[in-house]
Amino acid sequence: MKSLTEYLWFEVPGRRGFVNITGAVEKLVEKSGVAEGLCLVNAMHITASVFINDAEDGLLRDYEVWLEKIAPHEPVAAYHHNRTGEDNADAHLKRQIMGREVVVAVTDAKLDLGPWEQIFYGEFDGRRPKRVLVKIIGE
Amino acid sequence: MKSLTEYLWFEVPGRRGFVNITGAVEKLVEKSGVAEGLCLVNAMHITASVFINDAEDGLLRDYEVWLEKIAPHEPVAAYHHNRTGEDNADAHLKRQIMGREVVVAVTDAKLDLGPWEQIFYGEFDGRRPKRVLVKIIGE
Amino acid sequence: MKSLTEYLWFEVPGRRGFVNITGAVEKLVEKSGVAEGLCLVNAMHITASVFINDAEDGLLRDYEVWLEKIAPHEPVAAYHHNRTGEDNADAHLKRQIMGREVVVAVTDAKLDLGPWEQIFYGEFDGRRPKRVLVKIIGE
Repeated sequence: MKSLTEYLWFEVPGRRGFVNITGAVEKLVEKSGVAEGLCLVNAMHITASVFINDAEDGLLRDYEVWLEKIAPHEPVAAYHHNRTGEDNADAHLKRQIMGREVVVAVTDAKLDLGPWEQIFYGEFDGRRPKRVLVKIIGE
Repeated sequence: MKSLTEYLWFEVPGRRGFVNITGAVEKLVEKSGVAEGLCLVNAMHITASVFINDAEDGLLRDYEVWLEKIAPHEPVAAYHHNRTGEDNADAHLKRQIMGREVVVAVTDAKLDLGPWEQIFYGEFDGRRPKRVLVKIIGE
Repeated sequence: MKSLTEYLWFEVPGRRGFVNITGAVEKLVEKSGVAEGLCLVNAMHITASVFINDAEDGLLRDYEVWLEKIAPHEPVAAYHHNRTGEDNADAHLKRQIMGREVVVAVTDAKLDLGPWEQIFYGEFDGRRPKRVLVKIIGE
């Protein structure tokens, strides 16, 4: 069994943002030498997500509006978590909707993605360096 | 290490629908010859889900009602994504709630599911052929 | 390839509750002898979750309040599923928000978690014994 473990760093300049990381993950699959296996991609921070959806700017804006409606940032004092001095309780909630991780099949030495599947890093409490873990196992 | 990769095709006649795919996945586990490993089942389309829950018709209706409340189809023009000519922005949102994929343990050559766990394909923008990927790795 | 399969039992005394299971999963990784691989942790019951987030009591209360708002327990009769005699339809919905499973990388014989990542069992219909499956594969 082969395996590869790498960490991708991100520093999103605003509080929230989406970054398409498909190309970066594809390069790691190539580097791993795995032809058949599984590729785990997960946020290592609990106010961020890794998810798969469409690389369409309008949709990313729809996610932003929708998540703010389901788990609003304001009023900050409405959340118990923010009594610790944090102001990011909403980010912990938003990340549950969008998910922590994706597991993608590796087939014939490539990410086995559908025609429109793109892997995104979703940041909900940015302005500091944060990591994504990529782990590939297989043969 | 053994591996098996297969694609299941679905064409749900309505816009939305749920299909129990547990039996189809079980057959692929058998075909794979894997006794101990992991089985990934994921939608390859970004307006569809694979999830595990109860094969109870009332609950599936509850999901339908609930998802429509959280991410309504109408008004179509309320979504930025739909300015591209699409009318399926809500389907992209619903799929995030229900999830893209499940990873199920394979133990003693069988899907290691709890007593009521059933694997479903969730369609939120149907009326065309779409695929689910099944990848099994192990020994 | 090595593999380990274990089942953790929980009986949460109330209807809902969160249990930090990180230590229990870490011990199983050690027991598995796997140095590089993947660790699947999933609820085997469809009214419970396994998720990764912050071990901060205020945040766990925020999740409780938020989930009750998104998928309220009452009125019980509002759900089709509850016509079967159940009263736990909301628990099936809450579990979709929080997720069924996590897949965690095993690196250098340890769970490869970010600084604040903790694995939780989320119970939404407790007061009876329920299981979590832990499956570790790798080398």
